[in-house]
Amino acid sequence: MIRKRRSRLTPQEYIDGILSKNPFILSRAITLIESQLESDNQLATQIIDKLMPHTGKSVRVGITGVPGVGKSTFIETFGLYLAELEKQNKKVAVLAIDPSSQRSGGSILGDKTRMEKLSNHTNAYIRPSPAGNSLGGVSQKTRETMLLCEAAGFDVILIETVGVGQSETIVKGIIDFFLLLMLAGAGDELQGIKRGIMEMADMLVITKADGENKKAATRAKSQYKHALHLFPPNEAKWTVPVEICSALENEGISDIWKNIEKYIEQTIENRFFQHNRSQQNKQWLHQTIEERLKRDFYKNENVKNQLVELENQVANGNRNAVEVAKELLENYYQEI
Amino acid sequence: MIRKRRSRLTPQEYIDGILSKNPFILSRAITLIESQLESDNQLATQIIDKLMPHTGKSVRVGITGVPGVGKSTFIETFGLYLAELEKQNKKVAVLAIDPSSQRSGGSILGDKTRMEKLSNHTNAYIRPSPAGNSLGGVSQKTRETMLLCEAAGFDVILIETVGVGQSETIVKGIIDFFLLLMLAGAGDELQGIKRGIMEMADMLVITKADGENKKAATRAKSQYKHALHLFPPNEAKWTVPVEICSALENEGISDIWKNIEKYIEQTIENRFFQHNRSQQNKQWLHQTIEERLKRDFYKNENVKNQLVELENQVANGNRNAVEVAKELLENYYQEI
Repeated sequence: MIRKRRSRLTPQEYIDGILSKNPFILSRAITLIESQLESDNQLATQIIDKLMPHTGKSVRVGITGVPGVGKSTFIETFGLYLAELEKQNKKVAVLAIDPSSQRSGGSILGDKTRMEKLSNHTNAYIRPSPAGNSLGGVSQKTRETMLLCEAAGFDVILIETVGVGQSETIVKGIIDFFLLLMLAGAGDELQGIKRGIMEMADMLVITKADGENKKAATRAKSQYKHALHLFPPNEAKWTVPVEICSALENEGISDIWKNIEKYIEQTIENRFFQHNRSQQNKQWLHQTIEERLKRDFYKNENVKNQLVELENQVANGNRNAVEVAKELLENYYQEI
Repeated sequence: MIRKRRSRLTPQEYIDGILSKNPFILSRAITLIESQLESDNQLATQIIDKLMPHTGKSVRVGITGVPGVGKSTFIETFGLYLAELEKQNKKVAVLAIDPSSQRSGGSILGDKTRMEKLSNHTNAYIRPSPAGNSLGGVSQKTRETMLLCEAAGFDVILIETVGVGQSETIVKGIIDFFLLLMLAGAGDELQGIKRGIMEMADMLVITKADGENKKAATRAKSQYKHALHLFPPNEAKWTVPVEICSALENEGISDIWKNIEKYIEQTIENRFFQHNRSQQNKQWLHQTIEERLKRDFYKNENVKNQLVELENQVANGNRNAVEVAKELLENYYQEI
């Protein structure tokens, strides 16, 4: 009986279920994205293709920071704030990307109790992002999950990453706004945050600004403001704000959302928003094409057999990579 | 007669000429890299393949900064310093990458008189980097030129870029050490330098620290030192130094070279140097493979005919890029 209930729906049933905002059907469709079965993935892709006209209406926010910065607590508080926003009651979906979970099979969200109140809220939906076999795969699956959530009527998508670099670069290609959470500390606040991430941020928020920590947070805020001043302006012509907040005491949370709203407003006005989305979509197409060209090449048996030895010769500086690439490709094209 | 003299040499003649440090044969081999003829490029690649065991012994330094920062003057002074270094008399090759010249057909080096003394020095060799049709092409051609220079016995390769972002990312994959030249100014020193470049730098040098400008340069030095302090440590475990110099008054030049030497020493010691080179080589192989897979795909006539329309549908958010990519690739593989 259970097997029967869990069998696939028809594509139209998935589509209707998602458009009618049915969370169970949404979950089952995301399971198709996560599936190891190629046929499940293909079904998901077809469903998404049909749902595309119903996507794109959410605000897509990336949130990152080192472990210990208080991401879960922040997202719970921030998510609840949005879900209960006066007269608006935003529908909030939280996705999380954790490259390390690709190996462990686990996830940073793991236990839903991590955000207990938010996960039980009727306006919220929490889901770890499906692990892919490659970062390109993670990117694709996270984007597909986001699109399904949008089609199901979510207004704000929060995508959480762990601040180790690669997943942030991926997320940057999916989101509208990047929020970097930071700890106040002794001048080494960025220890653990990879180089480059600070320059991607559209806003810096210093967390845990409560109790004895509040003074340090305020000091850190002014230091970062000063440091950011030395950075060149970003493409969106947006001055990156630095704020402090306490998720524990629910302070500074509404200012963060106000900043995001202001950013969206300003970038729609100067057309960066639309430009960015359309560029992201084009990149998505080309990345998918290129990802598949590579995947097909590297999974070829003859290529696999020759590659390790040739790669070593190039790494040691004994062979010209261009010659080696030429040989490999000539053999590959003759074969397929 | 002239035509005859300029005809191709045999591969062995190129190889022998380069290994015997003949600058004319070096130049002719680089011309093969620059050539629009596929057969010339292929000959160059074969020559480089044979010369690989003679490459890799130089110190590879990237130099960037906005127009007006005084790159030419700096490189001339710095190059002459190295060329006349006591007891060492380094052989210095200067290459330059200018993405804008791809369009104009010109080059930032253009007139060699830009570095008149250096270009006439017996230990120096100045050459604009060959323009490619793509940034990947620029990367490949610059790397090949660098390898030929190394085989011809150059000890230091200086690769100049214009600080607009893309060429720096490419150069980062070729060099050992990245030098960022900066102007002292009124707090907006980085205007014009793309985000991310500062985080790539292994050293910051504030130029034109002479006359009335010296005080501002010294102040900028301490500001940047402070700002860099907030950055996370780089992969080489190297603390990025900030120096001031005056190419005009020949001040601060030797300290720059000392810092580079110290970096090389330290990274050979902690094995980052070798690791970085071998990673760069592997990336070179994979980039070349991937570049060619893409090139072959995008130059396919059927792909070309369908792409614009499909790309627009994806950009507008009307189609799922994954579905579109799948269709395009299935057609492509059936055809080749």
